[in-house]
Formats: sequence, C-alpha cells, structure tokens
Amino acid sequence: MSGRLTIALDAMGGDHAPRMVLRGADLARKRHPDVDFLIFGRESEVGPRLDKMKRLKQVTTLVHCDDVVSDSEKPSAALRGSRDASMRRAVEAVRDGRAGACVSAGNTGALMAMSKLVLKMLPGIERPAIASFFPTLRGESVMLDLGANVQCSAQNLVDFAVMGNVFCRTVLGTVEPATGLINVGSEELKGHETLWAARDQLNELDLPGRFYGFIEGDDMAKGTVDVIVTDGFTGNVALKASEGTAKLVSVYLQRTFKSSVFAQIGYLFARRAMQKLRQRTDPRRYNGAIFLGLNGITVKSHGGTDAVGFANAIDVAVDMVREDFLERIRSDLASIDRSVPAAQAAG
Amino acid sequence: MSGRLTIALDAMGGDHAPRMVLRGADLARKRHPDVDFLIFGRESEVGPRLDKMKRLKQVTTLVHCDDVVSDSEKPSAALRGSRDASMRRAVEAVRDGRAGACVSAGNTGALMAMSKLVLKMLPGIERPAIASFFPTLRGESVMLDLGANVQCSAQNLVDFAVMGNVFCRTVLGTVEPATGLINVGSEELKGHETLWAARDQLNELDLPGRFYGFIEGDDMAKGTVDVIVTDGFTGNVALKASEGTAKLVSVYLQRTFKSSVFAQIGYLFARRAMQKLRQRTDPRRYNGAIFLGLNGITVKSHGGTDAVGFANAIDVAVDMVREDFLERIRSDLASIDRSVPAAQAAG
Repeated sequence: MSGRLTIALDAMGGDHAPRMVLRGADLARKRHPDVDFLIFGRESEVGPRLDKMKRLKQVTTLVHCDDVVSDSEKPSAALRGSRDASMRRAVEAVRDGRAGACVSAGNTGALMAMSKLVLKMLPGIERPAIASFFPTLRGESVMLDLGANVQCSAQNLVDFAVMGNVFCRTVLGTVEPATGLINVGSEELKGHETLWAARDQLNELDLPGRFYGFIEGDDMAKGTVDVIVTDGFTGNVALKASEGTAKLVSVYLQRTFKSSVFAQIGYLFARRAMQKLRQRTDPRRYNGAIFLGLNGITVKSHGGTDAVGFANAIDVAVDMVREDFLERIRSDLASIDRSVPAAQAAG
Repeated sequence: MSGRLTIALDAMGGDHAPRMVLRGADLARKRHPDVDFLIFGRESEVGPRLDKMKRLKQVTTLVHCDDVVSDSEKPSAALRGSRDASMRRAVEAVRDGRAGACVSAGNTGALMAMSKLVLKMLPGIERPAIASFFPTLRGESVMLDLGANVQCSAQNLVDFAVMGNVFCRTVLGTVEPATGLINVGSEELKGHETLWAARDQLNELDLPGRFYGFIEGDDMAKGTVDVIVTDGFTGNVALKASEGTAKLVSVYLQRTFKSSVFAQIGYLFARRAMQKLRQRTDPRRYNGAIFLGLNGITVKSHGGTDAVGFANAIDVAVDMVREDFLERIRSDLASIDRSVPAAQAAG
C-alpha cells in the first residue's frame, strides 16, 4: 500500500489521556511521515494541547465528542449509553473508511463490544481474539487469545490459529510460522477434549508453516513456536504472570546492585549495558494488542502506558494497514477449511 | 512431633536417578540428623552407591524393588502393571505407617494415581491438588492446583482454598493467610460462573485469615495474597510461563554482562551480589510440590532436578511431618463447612 494513510485515535482512553495520546501521536508522526491522524475527544481538553503541537496539528483532524467511556463502565452500558463517545467514533471512522485502523487505550471490554458491533465479524469467524507480541529467546512470537473469550470451543481455537498465522506472517514477516497450542503437557493424552479436537483439526489444516502440536507454559518465552494459541482465560493469566515475574526479577536485580559497595561500583561499569537490557525488556515495546477476527483493525493500548507505549501501539496499527492485513486474512479465511468435525466440536 | 522420623524415597524416579536421589538424601541428612530414610529401588543400582556413602547408609534401609515406572508410562498402565515399582512401594510405606511421607521425582501422573489409590482421599475432599511455593516480592506464597485437575468445579476450588490455607499456616507459618482466586480481572463480573460460585462460597467461609477475592496473573509475583487458588490447567501454565520468563530474563542478563568490556568489568565487581541473586532465584529452592487432599504425604520433586533440588523436596516432606500437617488439615476440614450451595455448584 502506498500513499498517505489515516489512523483514528481515541484521545480520551487511558490513565494519562489525553496528554499521552497526543504525545504518542507526535512520536509516531516522526516515524511515519505519511500518516494522518483523525483524533476523537473533547475539544476543550484536546484542542488547546494540540494547538501547541504545530507539526502534529498539521497532519491531524480533531473531531469533538461529548462522551467518554470510563474504565469501570460495563461493555453493555457503554454500548447503549455512549453513542457520542470518542472510542465509538474512532471505531466508526474505520467502518466508514475514513481511517485504516483505530487505536484506543480505554476500557478493553467496551472497545471489544463496540468493535464487534460496529465493524462486524469476518466471514466464518465466530469470536474475535486479542493478540499481542511476546518476547522470546529467539525474538518475538504472536500470542492469542489474551482475554476476549474466557471459554473457547475447538473451532474458536482453530480460528485463532489461522488468524495468528496470518498476523505473524503479515506483521512479523515470518514466512512459515510454527503454531503451538498451550496445554499442561506435550503428551498426546494430557489436557481435555476441546484441546484434542483442536489439535486434530490443526494437524489437518493446510496452513503456511507447520503445526507444532501442544506446548507448555515455559515454551512461550523459549520461542518454541511463532504463534502461541490458547483460550482467553489461560492466555490472559499466563501473559500477566510472565509480566509479574519479569517485574519481580527486575526488582531483585535493583536490590542486588544496591546490596554492597562492590555491586554499586559494578553497576557503574555495567550501566550502559543495563540500560540497553532495560530497553529490550521494556513492556512499552510490546504495547499494542490487536483485535483479530473483525472487519476492520482495532488496536488496544495498555491503559497505564505513556506516550512511548502509545506510539508503539500506533506503530502496530500502521504496520497492519501498510501490510494490507485485512485483505490477507480475508483471502486466507476463504481458502482454508477450518471446520472442526461435528463429533469433536462438542468437546 | 519429637523423636526420629522416617521419609520414604523412590530411588528410581527422575532424570538423574538414582544418583541424585542418594546425593540429595545425603544433603538432607546433614540438615536433619533426626531423619531416617527408607529407600526403594533396584538393589543392583542403588546398593553399590549407598555402600560408598557410609553416613547415609547408617540411617537408611534399602528395600529392593524390581519395577520402575517410566516417564512415558500412562498412569493407568503404571497402576495395573507396576505392583513392585519403587514409586508404589514408597507410597505404600506411608500408608502402612513405616514412613511419615514419601518423595519421588518420577512420573507425576503415575505418582498422583498411586497416591490416590493407596493413600485414599481425606474425608469430604473430592479431588487432590498439587501445591507448591511461589517466590514473590513479599517472600513466598502457596499456589495450587498446579496440574492435578485440568477442569475444576466451584467445590474443588473451595477445597483447594481450605487445603492451601492449612498448608500455608503449617509450613510457611503465616498466621492469617490471605487467599485469592485467579481470574482475568479483579472486577466482580469478569470470568465465568464456576469462579463466581467459588468466590461467593469463599466469602462466607470462616477460615483463619481472609479471602481477598479475585486476583490477576501479575498478582502472583507481587505477593498480593499468601494462597493463590486456581484450576490445574491455569495453574500449571501460569507457573511454567513464570519459570520461562525468569529464565529468559536470566539469559538476557548473561548476554548483557558479556556485551562490552565495561559490562564485563562491572560483572567482576558485582559477582558476589549476582551469585546471591542467582541463589535466591534458583528454581531448586522451590523444588518439592505437595499432593494435598490425601490421607498421607506425597512430595513430588521436579524430574530434572539435581541433588540440591531433591534435598529441598525432602525438606518439604520433613517440614510437613514435623508440623503434623495431616492432623491439622483433618481437624480443619472437620470444622469448616465447605459446601457450595447446589444452585451454584453447577457452574
């Protein structure tokens, strides 16, 4: 895809909105000179800030919306009540073709519900999934579902594998991704029927790359596969457990460097290398989860992120539009028979 | 409990058995001069090694068994086929009162199946759970189930919370443990019906300590609660995902210290502090998972561990016997009404 492209932003979502949204957009603007922004939010809060950011303002159209979806709002209430919410307007801009993708750091459940309602599902996909990158010993993998579906059928898991496969090829550029299904053991008879049915079907699917089979929790960080498939409950807990452990080790490390004079001197020497390590393991690098399975591109930024993290979420949206993700997933879905045999789908 | 106590060991389970079992027992012997060992295994493989370990031999009775349960064996096959397996004999020694607890690094599924069959369940407990310690920012927490039950009812989760509470008070010495139930969000309406039913019941239970409510994956390492309750599928994946991430950060850290001459010099200064950090995060420290809910104490060591890790698993067994864990859990189970109301238990 060539020429200019437009990304819609929800200026009001996130703990530090709208400031970090505008600053994040400004960072992304420097990296993507061919991107325009369509920003939705309260004129009184966003306008004055934008006026001070001349260059960002040149590539931005600000659209005033009265409503804001709060973090505590239930998805159903947000759907009914907030017709003029910045989040909803951003998703509608994607539906109407005024933007190639939208990014919001707001309420995840509400953003998912609005995206489903406004964008609709891709043909043959029953449930959307939340996907994101996961750092591994070998680089990066794609992981899904991270929380959209707490309970999944075999068919859902197969759909996630197909969508994750396309996503991995499109955005990470992995030519033949290996896909793995999370289980409590790699043995054939561990787990439960839903997993066995999904595995059997994935063994027969003719996807680019290969189906590795079952993987375990520690295979995530090992980089055993490129696409990590699981239900939204397990995926959400495993991702957050990993984040918590990374944070724990980082605190231990800080304490270690402060534990003696020698260690403090050691830190002075190793400081630059340690800063690089911190950059590498910076959770903001992996900010930007994608809602897959919809007729349009919605990227969810972490609510607590800052401008750097939000700019990364915009990067993900730009990449997906540039690589023509939607067309590729539509054509793959049309060409692959993903149906789980009826006797197994019940599992 | 005073006087000498006996621990039964399966000499044949684990990747480095029987060598690491004997060496691990020898390490544990130094820490616990009042412990005798009852070791089950092949005389031809264990006997000559034991002959060289004079002090261990003085406190050990070796019982020859012909059979060994392999790692690939299905639990059902191990139950039927291996009547004279070292693993089974070790569990039977607990049932017959010849040992206070048994430790094995062998096939987890087979060890669980044998423990259930031989030791039987505690009154009112439907399913056993695998519990272990988890390192946190605040110290250590207890986590269960780590893989015995891939699908759990609300009643199972409530039982796990009660058993984890007793275990935490007995072995960690936490007077009033806080208990949390893993979910995909701390909000009341996230998750699914089984979790809501378990939460409602736990809110009403009169346990020592308090029920914190729902926790998320990152609360595990934060140490938000002392007892982390979840189903065996989620628990297994989350624990292994955390282990994988800790390993990933550790590899990143090694690379960082090698990345420049300055960093290498820094490492020389910080080396002692780093060694302490490595000891603190050593997975062998947390080796020794406990099967809770049985009429006897079975401790499962990681199959790939070495003598240091196996000795830690023996420590856990010794602690449980010394602290009279079985009597305490029996009395707690008798005094607490754990029943989930029928309308909810269906969830």
